[in-house]
Amino acid sequence: MEIFEKIVNKARECFLDSKGSHDWEHILRVYNLCLHIGKKEGADMEILKIASILHDIGRPYQDKSNGEICHAEKGVVLARELLSEFNFDNEKINKIVHCIETHRFRNKKVPISKEAKILFDADKLDSIGATGIGRAFLFSGEIGAKLHNKDIDIEKTKAYSKEDTAYREYIVKLIKIKDRMLTNEGKHLAEERNDFMVQFFDRLNKEVDGEL
Amino acid sequence: MEIFEKIVNKARECFLDSKGSHDWEHILRVYNLCLHIGKKEGADMEILKIASILHDIGRPYQDKSNGEICHAEKGVVLARELLSEFNFDNEKINKIVHCIETHRFRNKKVPISKEAKILFDADKLDSIGATGIGRAFLFSGEIGAKLHNKDIDIEKTKAYSKEDTAYREYIVKLIKIKDRMLTNEGKHLAEERNDFMVQFFDRLNKEVDGEL
Repeated sequence: MEIFEKIVNKARECFLDSKGSHDWEHILRVYNLCLHIGKKEGADMEILKIASILHDIGRPYQDKSNGEICHAEKGVVLARELLSEFNFDNEKINKIVHCIETHRFRNKKVPISKEAKILFDADKLDSIGATGIGRAFLFSGEIGAKLHNKDIDIEKTKAYSKEDTAYREYIVKLIKIKDRMLTNEGKHLAEERNDFMVQFFDRLNKEVDGEL
Repeated sequence: MEIFEKIVNKARECFLDSKGSHDWEHILRVYNLCLHIGKKEGADMEILKIASILHDIGRPYQDKSNGEICHAEKGVVLARELLSEFNFDNEKINKIVHCIETHRFRNKKVPISKEAKILFDADKLDSIGATGIGRAFLFSGEIGAKLHNKDIDIEKTKAYSKEDTAYREYIVKLIKIKDRMLTNEGKHLAEERNDFMVQFFDRLNKEVDGEL
């Protein structure tokens, strides 16, 4: 078995208990996007492939600690251990770890390398477009929220509540993602995904009123 | 308080424990669609408004009995009781009850009156389009299913399983709804909603592969 396959198998094990909106298939989608963007942007594909497969391996620790442990920081520690086992040299490990460390939206450490920027973009792209719409509703279902509230007041409603609809997520977070992209291809894809998302929620608001 | 408002309040009480994919707001969306279609089709709006508000009041009984009680049949009994309390005459009660009795997809009793056909269409329309997409993913989240599986084998997967994705629902059921419409305006709306749904899942399949 190739080393990459072994890394994939190790990473997959971290997601056995994950829920649908943030599971192993999120990793595969981000990996596919990294392949696509990486080719367009001329990235080091070995670094990018491994970083994308490993970028969320710290997530179970974050979930179990109710957010006290940062999954990006934990992922760095776990990735270093794992890559050392496979005898990667320090330079490669540092390049991969830089991508993992800087992929998180709210972290202060920002992506510097091309590969880190691509992973950042791919990970955020998975929150928008048709995929992002699906994930937002799936997550609403997981937390027992309602389908939709087109007149939602985001100041008076809370995340992880019955009122935490996909539409709330869209207004509060998803609509802003396209302005955070770091690569040209990421920007291009984000514009298209955003346009589709806008079209979706405009239609939903009209459907709910019985107009369409 | 008007009688209609009192009926609305009585009906709403039946949905206090309902989940997001089939809750009181489903009733309001169906009601809005009935208003829209009813005006286009020249329906008796009093019959249609009351029937749409009451059409699912039997649903909690169906859910609690794990499907043994049919919510349309139970709804007929409950609606008769409720409407008698408000002194509706028998003719009106029969017209309203006919709509409730025949609104269910799998029932043998079919809608004969214009109002019953409109309620049937409105109820099914709420399963497709942007609303239908949202409901399908929300339901997947509620039952702990995964986000998507574009290569799903519908013969080897089951409803209400982890593999019961929105996409499975779309292939097995939602794509066929447009061919079941009974009114002209219902057909028109269903075609548009179906086109949007096809566009959504085509895009989702490409996004998942990192193409868009």
